[in-house]
Amino acid sequence: MEQITIIGDGGWGTALAILLNKKGIKTLLWSYSPVYAEYLNKTRENTKFLKGVKIPFDIEITSDIETASCCNTVIFAVPCEYAGKIAEQFKNASFKTIVSATKGIEKKTFKRPSEILSENFTNSKIFVLSGPSISSEVASFFPASVVLAGESDTISTLQALLTAPTFRVYASNDIIGVELGGALKNVIAIAAGISDGLGFGANAKASILTRGLVEIARLGVKMGARRETFSGLSGIGDLATTCISPFSRNRTFGEEVGKGLKAEDIIKRTEMAIEGVGTAKSAYELSLKYQVDMPITSQIYKIIYEGKNPRKAVSDLMTRELKKEDYF
Amino acid sequence: MEQITIIGDGGWGTALAILLNKKGIKTLLWSYSPVYAEYLNKTRENTKFLKGVKIPFDIEITSDIETASCCNTVIFAVPCEYAGKIAEQFKNASFKTIVSATKGIEKKTFKRPSEILSENFTNSKIFVLSGPSISSEVASFFPASVVLAGESDTISTLQALLTAPTFRVYASNDIIGVELGGALKNVIAIAAGISDGLGFGANAKASILTRGLVEIARLGVKMGARRETFSGLSGIGDLATTCISPFSRNRTFGEEVGKGLKAEDIIKRTEMAIEGVGTAKSAYELSLKYQVDMPITSQIYKIIYEGKNPRKAVSDLMTRELKKEDYF
Repeated sequence: MEQITIIGDGGWGTALAILLNKKGIKTLLWSYSPVYAEYLNKTRENTKFLKGVKIPFDIEITSDIETASCCNTVIFAVPCEYAGKIAEQFKNASFKTIVSATKGIEKKTFKRPSEILSENFTNSKIFVLSGPSISSEVASFFPASVVLAGESDTISTLQALLTAPTFRVYASNDIIGVELGGALKNVIAIAAGISDGLGFGANAKASILTRGLVEIARLGVKMGARRETFSGLSGIGDLATTCISPFSRNRTFGEEVGKGLKAEDIIKRTEMAIEGVGTAKSAYELSLKYQVDMPITSQIYKIIYEGKNPRKAVSDLMTRELKKEDYF
Repeated sequence: MEQITIIGDGGWGTALAILLNKKGIKTLLWSYSPVYAEYLNKTRENTKFLKGVKIPFDIEITSDIETASCCNTVIFAVPCEYAGKIAEQFKNASFKTIVSATKGIEKKTFKRPSEILSENFTNSKIFVLSGPSISSEVASFFPASVVLAGESDTISTLQALLTAPTFRVYASNDIIGVELGGALKNVIAIAAGISDGLGFGANAKASILTRGLVEIARLGVKMGARRETFSGLSGIGDLATTCISPFSRNRTFGEEVGKGLKAEDIIKRTEMAIEGVGTAKSAYELSLKYQVDMPITSQIYKIIYEGKNPRKAVSDLMTRELKKEDYF
């Protein structure tokens, strides 16, 4: 029987456990916190991160490192900022195949999650799973299509393993592009949320999505990604979901900023990671490092970190010099 | 003083008249129907196509061909199926610059609106205006970004003329790509609506948007468009708006189909043109003619014209052979 361990009890990790369990794969969910692991075991509902969805009883839930180290195949689904620390905890495990489901860029080092994993697990094959995947929908078996990236020639086996009737997995060999799309789109999602918060409509949001994609692809290509990956599920697809869904934390954060709330106040009272806030800083610094023009990212940075007025930021974006439409 | 005539009293024509009038351009709006022109003149509200927005008194409204033939610059904003007939009515006008704001492909002939205009106005310079532009938002001065396509070296003058503080115009020289994006996206918008009607979520819709764009770009390139244009405002941008907005007629049509209504019944009781219905047939025929794989378009064609069950269509899409992610 196939067996998979999911490291990380967030919404995404829990949803993947539920999805794969339904497919008949023996699934183990690892939680960082012994207290929360016990709570999950007792209540069978992840009220903090995936409210309203029952976790089947045959999904094993543990916070024990050794128990969770048993499988050949693991999915890493922890917040980006803890990726290094948690990988370190599992240093004695001999995973054959690791799928990173973490989205983000490590602060200061600018490392992608798969780079962090590669450094910690030098003998494992590392893959990346990304794309439009709101956890609550996947856990409710609504249709989704995602992309699995990896360089290995074993990707098609893993692709088939993760595919389910409501979960269509495409294969890619552009790890960098898939990871950067998934990280950088959160900055654009904040911009889309700010537009919503200011009371703007679908036209404004679609423009932000389109022009946002141009600028993140511009940076991505300089960092080694393939241009066309940004027009795929981990680029446009993930960005579109995040901009549309009322459940996206990054979009919701932006909406509150657009309505006039202070960024730091929202962050303080939010339990879940708002990945885009950190990524906005990293992306801004990367745009300077690689000398890439990123007008939307740079306005988001100024709004979050320099207290710029969102309405002024929009007006500055709309009234720049007229230009030819450029693409990515 | 600058002067522009808008031919077509639909939502988009009326919104453009209101936008340009506010900018201080003398604007004339031409209606096909003398009765409706009189009604608009009297009530100053386009209740049929742009409810709730006041039309300023200094916008001249007429159904007289000669009066509307006075300007050097006109915007054609009529439904695609009437474009040829209405262009014929204006055959004696000597327009210098014509901007086509019509989206669609002529049935059977597969002509783009700008081709129809070029045939009728051989001495005019023809441009195309497209992109994410829900009429009610533009008429309410919410921010929007659009693209103006044309081969002429005078495009920057026209770009500046049409730009307004809430309406950012980018320039392109790919008329074919801009027009095909604007037409074909309506088929994908119907698919997005069907997904909504079936009760699916943001993941499914984002996948439809992403994979839909891949297939319309595939066809577009075979028809002479540039690939990258589909990643711009007239491609991704317009498609995203149409998929997001509750006001998109094509998306709404799809939603009703997804809920179980018969396509022909919805069409019968809808006063406005649902461009995507005709375009689905044209696109399906074009995919056969150019031998392009268009799985989503082909399912939409089968749902509308062959009565296929939408849920079966989705299941057929999700369970195809696993593949590498391809792009456009």
